[in-house]
Amino acid sequence: MNISLTSGKSITGSADKSILESLKEAGIFLTSSCGSKGVCGKCKVIVKSGEVDSKSQIKLSQEEISQGYALACATFPAGDIVIDIPKESILTVEGKVVTGKSKDLQALLQSTGASIDPLTERSVLQLPPATLDDNISDLERLKRELMTEGLGCLRVPFRFLNKLSEAVRKEDWKITLSTIHTDDCNEIINIFSGDQKTPQYGIAVDIGTTTVVLYLVDLTNGELVDVASTYNSQIRFGDDVITRIVHATENNELKSLHSAVISDINDLLSLVVSNHNLNTDAIDCFVISGNTTMTQLFLGLDPSAIREEPYIPTANIFPLAYAGELGIKSHRSTPIYSFPCVASYVGGDIVAGVLATRLHEKEEISIFIDIGTNGEIVIGNSEWLMSAACSAGPCFEGSGIKHGMRATDGAIENVIIDPDTKEVEIKVIGDDVQPAGICGSGMIDAIAGMFLAGILDQKGKMQEDASDRVRKGEEGLEFVIHSSDGRDIVLTEPDIENLVRAKAAIYAGFATLLNEVGFTFDDVQKVYIAGGFGKFLDIEKAIILGMLPEIPREKFEYMGNTSVVGSYLCLLSRKMRAEAEEISQKITYLELSVSNSFMDEYMSGMFIPHTNMEAFPNVKAMMDK
Amino acid sequence: MNISLTSGKSITGSADKSILESLKEAGIFLTSSCGSKGVCGKCKVIVKSGEVDSKSQIKLSQEEISQGYALACATFPAGDIVIDIPKESILTVEGKVVTGKSKDLQALLQSTGASIDPLTERSVLQLPPATLDDNISDLERLKRELMTEGLGCLRVPFRFLNKLSEAVRKEDWKITLSTIHTDDCNEIINIFSGDQKTPQYGIAVDIGTTTVVLYLVDLTNGELVDVASTYNSQIRFGDDVITRIVHATENNELKSLHSAVISDINDLLSLVVSNHNLNTDAIDCFVISGNTTMTQLFLGLDPSAIREEPYIPTANIFPLAYAGELGIKSHRSTPIYSFPCVASYVGGDIVAGVLATRLHEKEEISIFIDIGTNGEIVIGNSEWLMSAACSAGPCFEGSGIKHGMRATDGAIENVIIDPDTKEVEIKVIGDDVQPAGICGSGMIDAIAGMFLAGILDQKGKMQEDASDRVRKGEEGLEFVIHSSDGRDIVLTEPDIENLVRAKAAIYAGFATLLNEVGFTFDDVQKVYIAGGFGKFLDIEKAIILGMLPEIPREKFEYMGNTSVVGSYLCLLSRKMRAEAEEISQKITYLELSVSNSFMDEYMSGMFIPHTNMEAFPNVKAMMDK
Repeated sequence: MNISLTSGKSITGSADKSILESLKEAGIFLTSSCGSKGVCGKCKVIVKSGEVDSKSQIKLSQEEISQGYALACATFPAGDIVIDIPKESILTVEGKVVTGKSKDLQALLQSTGASIDPLTERSVLQLPPATLDDNISDLERLKRELMTEGLGCLRVPFRFLNKLSEAVRKEDWKITLSTIHTDDCNEIINIFSGDQKTPQYGIAVDIGTTTVVLYLVDLTNGELVDVASTYNSQIRFGDDVITRIVHATENNELKSLHSAVISDINDLLSLVVSNHNLNTDAIDCFVISGNTTMTQLFLGLDPSAIREEPYIPTANIFPLAYAGELGIKSHRSTPIYSFPCVASYVGGDIVAGVLATRLHEKEEISIFIDIGTNGEIVIGNSEWLMSAACSAGPCFEGSGIKHGMRATDGAIENVIIDPDTKEVEIKVIGDDVQPAGICGSGMIDAIAGMFLAGILDQKGKMQEDASDRVRKGEEGLEFVIHSSDGRDIVLTEPDIENLVRAKAAIYAGFATLLNEVGFTFDDVQKVYIAGGFGKFLDIEKAIILGMLPEIPREKFEYMGNTSVVGSYLCLLSRKMRAEAEEISQKITYLELSVSNSFMDEYMSGMFIPHTNMEAFPNVKAMMDK
Repeated sequence: MNISLTSGKSITGSADKSILESLKEAGIFLTSSCGSKGVCGKCKVIVKSGEVDSKSQIKLSQEEISQGYALACATFPAGDIVIDIPKESILTVEGKVVTGKSKDLQALLQSTGASIDPLTERSVLQLPPATLDDNISDLERLKRELMTEGLGCLRVPFRFLNKLSEAVRKEDWKITLSTIHTDDCNEIINIFSGDQKTPQYGIAVDIGTTTVVLYLVDLTNGELVDVASTYNSQIRFGDDVITRIVHATENNELKSLHSAVISDINDLLSLVVSNHNLNTDAIDCFVISGNTTMTQLFLGLDPSAIREEPYIPTANIFPLAYAGELGIKSHRSTPIYSFPCVASYVGGDIVAGVLATRLHEKEEISIFIDIGTNGEIVIGNSEWLMSAACSAGPCFEGSGIKHGMRATDGAIENVIIDPDTKEVEIKVIGDDVQPAGICGSGMIDAIAGMFLAGILDQKGKMQEDASDRVRKGEEGLEFVIHSSDGRDIVLTEPDIENLVRAKAAIYAGFATLLNEVGFTFDDVQKVYIAGGFGKFLDIEKAIILGMLPEIPREKFEYMGNTSVVGSYLCLLSRKMRAEAEEISQKITYLELSVSNSFMDEYMSGMFIPHTNMEAFPNVKAMMDK
């Protein structure tokens, strides 16, 4: 049977294959964070005509159902159908982001003083042909040539030996070696006959608890060629790292968690590879960064000891893995460098963030905070670095929020609420795009605005009569941020509760860590904020919410996803990899979960902006107005 | 159905399973050099009662058939049967050889000045338990302990990382590491919880073109615990290395050749492992030596370039392989060290021989010759080493000789023919054993004896009337060496032709190589002879045959299988491994196949003892008598 898309394309479907599956086979990838279980509601399609069989309608409103919305993973065509795929469902290669970002990234790399010296290199060698007088073995000939060329020693893992004889003879003794420098020697990771110097790409990946972001990078010049991202489909086993560790341990499901993230990365990889018509042999290496649990699950390592006192990871500096060992669909010997971690709750993503912000090089005291699922903080300078993790939860990444979504096309990233008229103005990511949900920065704006407009009280309680946008919903009161075509985007009372808990944890983290090292917010010269927010994180609003401390606006800098930037840097530079390992060793970790002062600070932060209003004099003044 | 053995044992058989297969399943291994094709005739059994279905009777005489002889690989029981297994068919663990040999080997190792420093080591570590104050990762804890204990750096291949967390916690932070020292670091090859310091064994293997010999060695003290050997079942693809290379190349059968020898080694391994009730985890490492082709086939490397001018092997110094990569039935990470080779036709077995004879340490000029399938010669001293290979063929190892067999139990290893009465006296290997065939030393004795008794002329032609032991056989004239129970052991005219060609090639090799370096036989102080002969290789007889030069008897020393001895030494000592690599680099290789003077010498050697009788004055005197 036939599935026609309103965009004009037509693909083959079948009654025993979900629409999601058929789209995937045709190279159209939808967001599916529950792994086709029909529970996350992210793979919505609109059935315009034809009969379908839907096994699940979870997360679809009555209104949506009446409009033909269906979950692609749980819906099977019963004949020829026509479907429309809403923008927010499509797993996009964020092509248009690239141009700008690539220049920024290349400039950042240059500013560190590092040259392009990627994780793997290709060398083209013309060997002198074997003769009766020069009859050394193929392997010795190869090693001799590398020495002659000043390329240093060569280690040939046994698995490549059986390719060698044919490879050197196929194109008149000219070959290309792809190598990785490790343990002071060059180790072969691929052999080609003839000159195969280019193409030569690397992959940088940020494995977030909620989202996975993948960069396709040209290793010859550092160009960011493409970006793709998706939800981490481990979400179906739980939103936060602890739930996933419990699931891996108690349900003996380590393998499922491992496979979930590997499959996400493989999906993103096929997307960029097919988008640029690449052979997988063109991909020479991977650098991945993630928090410690994400890194261990990616590597298939039992994370159970991370959860139990004294909270011990298997490793902080990981041996190289190879694609074949992990199930990554690249050449089996493609090396995978995992970012070094600090401790069980301060991982490689944070080291990557420090590396990207260059905090470790500065004399002044700075704070780095990554507001992802956990909320990790580093404070320090070129002399010392101190870190902690506050369990903020994944709501700012859209998870656990009714209409929450990542900061991609269709996300409301900016919300202005007129304190008097209570009218709402929104800004949506993407050109001429209908809003599909709300991302972290939009949520912060919305709550701050609702608070100042009297729609929320200091406890975060919604005031039913404060605006006609407040209405009773399925989960209690809800505030309508946007309404179009009968499809509303709202923030519910449970959403607000989630967000207030998260912001309280973040502020408590700052306060406890500063107190521990004997400094105050006045001593801090810079606050770098990383995380999956849109471009326009409104710092004032975050201060009004009480998530960020009330210090001068100019001290804050919003950095975006520093984890994947760190991976990018390490993919391209040996100096950066050395720095990353130094940083991971230098950072001291403070365990907040056993800290009473953290719990006190957390409880004090459960108000908007805070119980201690003296720390927020400007907000107080605004409220008084 | 039931297969009863006359020895008393009883095993289960089936109509669709060959007797060989059923015996194998019951842990009784027979010699089977054709890989169960029913063509080599080595797996004979005698069916004493019951019905069988025999698919092949090749190599069985009418007399044997009438006595119930059958090929176990091609014979299927049709009901309950009783069989007798002749001694020569059983693949034996040569237990009784061991006691003596072990002391010799241990003494040899000691005499080199090397201490026991095996290829792999085990270390038992008691780690300090993790606490909130000492919360480094498991991997860092392990590395720190190794540094603290002065054991140096530790490299953990990624595949072990997922074992680590459980391993350290299972027995209260006590673990045993099995490691190999490579690239100046200790690399993990196995991890155990608790104290698993012993048992700790290594395997030394000689992969001959004709036979495979395996030593089970206790790595803690160098004791040779067991020996097992079999025919190299690659024989079914051809007797010599060239035929096998052709088969691998032209028939695309590299995989079959590789699997054949791997399966031989696996058979021998299960034999010694089950004989000593070992867990395969007790086997920590392998050292293998063989000629270059055998080494490449063992490693699964395409050998085609070895055969074509300029005769180039893939490698002479091989990277470590792991059991799992080769299909060796040991723990998959068990490292396999392959002996370094010199060139396409002078391999690791010869380097092992030089190492074992210590020729490379002596000031005097010595010759080393390994009379296996090829006949490789090394001449030199502590300053220089020169080598060549003369294609002698595998007949001295029993292959291509009607009643030829290896020098194991049942082999006639000594033959004395009275020149006057032409009566024959034989000596058989083993206590109270019926002769089953004739091995290399017996053949040399027999031909020299036949020659001196006038049964053979100088051209190797058999004289029909010279003795009543000469008779017409299926392949022309044959000489009956032994007759019992109606089963004769003979040397045929084709056997003699084979042997004369082989001895001519060996002598021509000596002569050409000496000539090349500008020395004569008078300059040689020592001749070390290695090969699969019995204990009593009679040097005089070999001189009469013209295989060895006529120089004083005391200059010759018969060394036995020096290839496996070299493997034994390298298994136990780092010093020996370094020496082996030095030797392989130091030996200069002379290509005889393009040498005219070698061809001339070869043709001159096709007489007994030689065309140039002046080089054999004593033999001439004997003949004149």
